[in-house]
Amino acid sequence: MDRWDAVSETLLFSAARRDHVANVVAPRLAAGTWVVCDRYIDSTIAYQGYGRGLPIDELMAIQRFASGNLWPDLTLILDLTVLEGFRRAAGRAGAADRFERLDHEFHERLRSGFLRIARDNPGRCAVVDASGDVMAVQRAICAAVTQRLAIRLA
Amino acid sequence: MDRWDAVSETLLFSAARRDHVANVVAPRLAAGTWVVCDRYIDSTIAYQGYGRGLPIDELMAIQRFASGNLWPDLTLILDLTVLEGFRRAAGRAGAADRFERLDHEFHERLRSGFLRIARDNPGRCAVVDASGDVMAVQRAICAAVTQRLAIRLA
Repeated sequence: MDRWDAVSETLLFSAARRDHVANVVAPRLAAGTWVVCDRYIDSTIAYQGYGRGLPIDELMAIQRFASGNLWPDLTLILDLTVLEGFRRAAGRAGAADRFERLDHEFHERLRSGFLRIARDNPGRCAVVDASGDVMAVQRAICAAVTQRLAIRLA
Repeated sequence: MDRWDAVSETLLFSAARRDHVANVVAPRLAAGTWVVCDRYIDSTIAYQGYGRGLPIDELMAIQRFASGNLWPDLTLILDLTVLEGFRRAAGRAGAADRFERLDHEFHERLRSGFLRIARDNPGRCAVVDASGDVMAVQRAICAAVTQRLAIRLA
């Protein structure tokens, strides 16, 4: 049996998030720097909520507490079928992490969870089709950033 | 500056509490064993709430989440003046922990927080006068346990 259940996992990720927000993200934002972050609150809602089945409202309360209710201006959700995701992970060097070892059904719940978060937060989230190659995904990301933040990237 | 603020501290203690409940306390209770635990939810409410100033209702929500809403049948709160507490801590071997290094005012908030928790939960909590010697405190604890749990101790 895994020592850390979904609740422990949530609390440990939330402690790490708090540390990251308090010591890295918030000081940079206060200095006027743009911050790009890989994984944030939505990942906890998707993995521990839609994936593991913990109540979304309780998770949201803990995330607001952990982050000081700090939200991104724009969240990019890179979308891919589960099969293609597994195919790419298998071609990558290194061992699978604790989530990659979970089954196909878990990853289907995860994907539909992220897509639901995007539908529920249309002003903040943009879904990017990640099925193409690196250049195609990069172009899609630039288009989303340009459009949503109303800026032109160099 | 301390790397771990009150919010990080809460989340780390809550992760440790979850681990303790899931892997130690709950299996013993399920087996019919009596569990005696040093520090539980009330300590988080007292230290991070009344002591550090975080909102009590948010802390309670996280504690219910972390513990699976598992509560003791009886909580003993050993009460002592702050001055006498400092005097005893100074006479003890070993370095002071992160809370013992905090100031007198913090410990006064802590003590009144614990006493308020006891007043708010009279059916569950018993305040024990800890100003006497070990034998006197032991007698007071036995009396509280005998009375509250309606059992006779050997």
